[in-house]
Amino acid sequence: MLRRLKITVAYDGSGLAGWQSQLSGDSVQDHLERAAQKITRQQTRVHGAGRTDAGVHALGQCAHLDVPSRGWPAERWISALNASLPHRVRVMRCRYVAQHFHARFDAAGKVYRYRIWNAPVQSPLEFQRSWHVPTPLLFEEVEAATDLFRGRHDFAGFAANRGQPPESTVRTIETVRIRRKGAGIAVEFRGDGFLYKMVRLMVGGIVECGLAKCSVDELRERLAGRVAPKARVSAPAHGLYLVRVRY
Amino acid sequence: MLRRLKITVAYDGSGLAGWQSQLSGDSVQDHLERAAQKITRQQTRVHGAGRTDAGVHALGQCAHLDVPSRGWPAERWISALNASLPHRVRVMRCRYVAQHFHARFDAAGKVYRYRIWNAPVQSPLEFQRSWHVPTPLLFEEVEAATDLFRGRHDFAGFAANRGQPPESTVRTIETVRIRRKGAGIAVEFRGDGFLYKMVRLMVGGIVECGLAKCSVDELRERLAGRVAPKARVSAPAHGLYLVRVRY
Repeated sequence: MLRRLKITVAYDGSGLAGWQSQLSGDSVQDHLERAAQKITRQQTRVHGAGRTDAGVHALGQCAHLDVPSRGWPAERWISALNASLPHRVRVMRCRYVAQHFHARFDAAGKVYRYRIWNAPVQSPLEFQRSWHVPTPLLFEEVEAATDLFRGRHDFAGFAANRGQPPESTVRTIETVRIRRKGAGIAVEFRGDGFLYKMVRLMVGGIVECGLAKCSVDELRERLAGRVAPKARVSAPAHGLYLVRVRY
Repeated sequence: MLRRLKITVAYDGSGLAGWQSQLSGDSVQDHLERAAQKITRQQTRVHGAGRTDAGVHALGQCAHLDVPSRGWPAERWISALNASLPHRVRVMRCRYVAQHFHARFDAAGKVYRYRIWNAPVQSPLEFQRSWHVPTPLLFEEVEAATDLFRGRHDFAGFAANRGQPPESTVRTIETVRIRRKGAGIAVEFRGDGFLYKMVRLMVGGIVECGLAKCSVDELRERLAGRVAPKARVSAPAHGLYLVRVRY
């Protein structure tokens, strides 16, 4: 008998080919499927809550897979899977869920964090873990620009194409939080859903405001869809963290 | 004319052979000396405030070296040196100092931080950056044990040998701070000097108390030199950070 297992996965995205299965076999999904197959000796498909690009990190990505029950408590899958995973990928939690649970379709929202290192020299401990912006950012502009995104908006101007376009580009960002500690700046977005590259394009716009390359008013107009930007800046993948998936 | 340059260096110790020059050439000192020689085309010796072991990280190691003045402002050395350094090693600050300044002999104290990850599974983003202690620590014992080390003590029981023994094993720890955030625990020691492996042996003792393998009273006796421990636990190098050198 198969049981559905919900897993919470963390990964250091540097050196990984992103979430989705790749020919190279070096995606998070590939690693998880190989680990599961090693235990179950069956072809096993792992369904993620969403895809993350190469370089993006996760503290709490979620996924589901069907496993033979074997009478194992759910926790036993944590150590069993981790035993076959590279250090960059760790299963943090496991629990059995109803057969109809689906990691992607049942997701009610997500929390993403974006980390910036704003100092002339980047700390080597931040290498591939935050976006190094050497020029001092105007922090009030950064705060004002971040605030713009709160609420329900059509985020068409802050999305990239990947495969078929979504039915709607309207999303709600329930909370945005910005924290600053020394050279580190972290912006956290909690929303009901995110379009492809949406966080990186929002952060790109926020940093442009902080560098006075764009005004907060211009960014507001762009969000309102009244102006198309000349060139959109996408913050690099390695500063992005999928913090949590809400169900 | 040579001028003395004081440099503040940060490094991600994982994959490095520690501070001191090695035949492998993969120590922080080796990297810095090669970078300096590439610019000056002269044999250049870099003198550190202290040696750190392989795996140990630094946010603010200090060192000095003599460089041709060339009329360069001190800041120019930052980018010049970083251009030849691996990403794991970064020069964060530079300034010219008096010819008699010595990074080691003039150091008045240091701040070390030790990071522990206390959860069943270690976050992949903490790999080689903190000590993974999977068993829940008794936090009150950890706090009480940490407190013991505050003040002036003979730390002979918390030191390892390396080369010739120091004249005195008495040191003063001015402040200890402990912070806990989720699974992360950070213990910070600010002292006038540290013996070889002293922080790792103190943290080893603290964690033994947190695991109820040793009582706080036993640790106190050991610090007082009244009992020799059966076996000393040294916390692993990769959880240790040299935060700052004080002059």
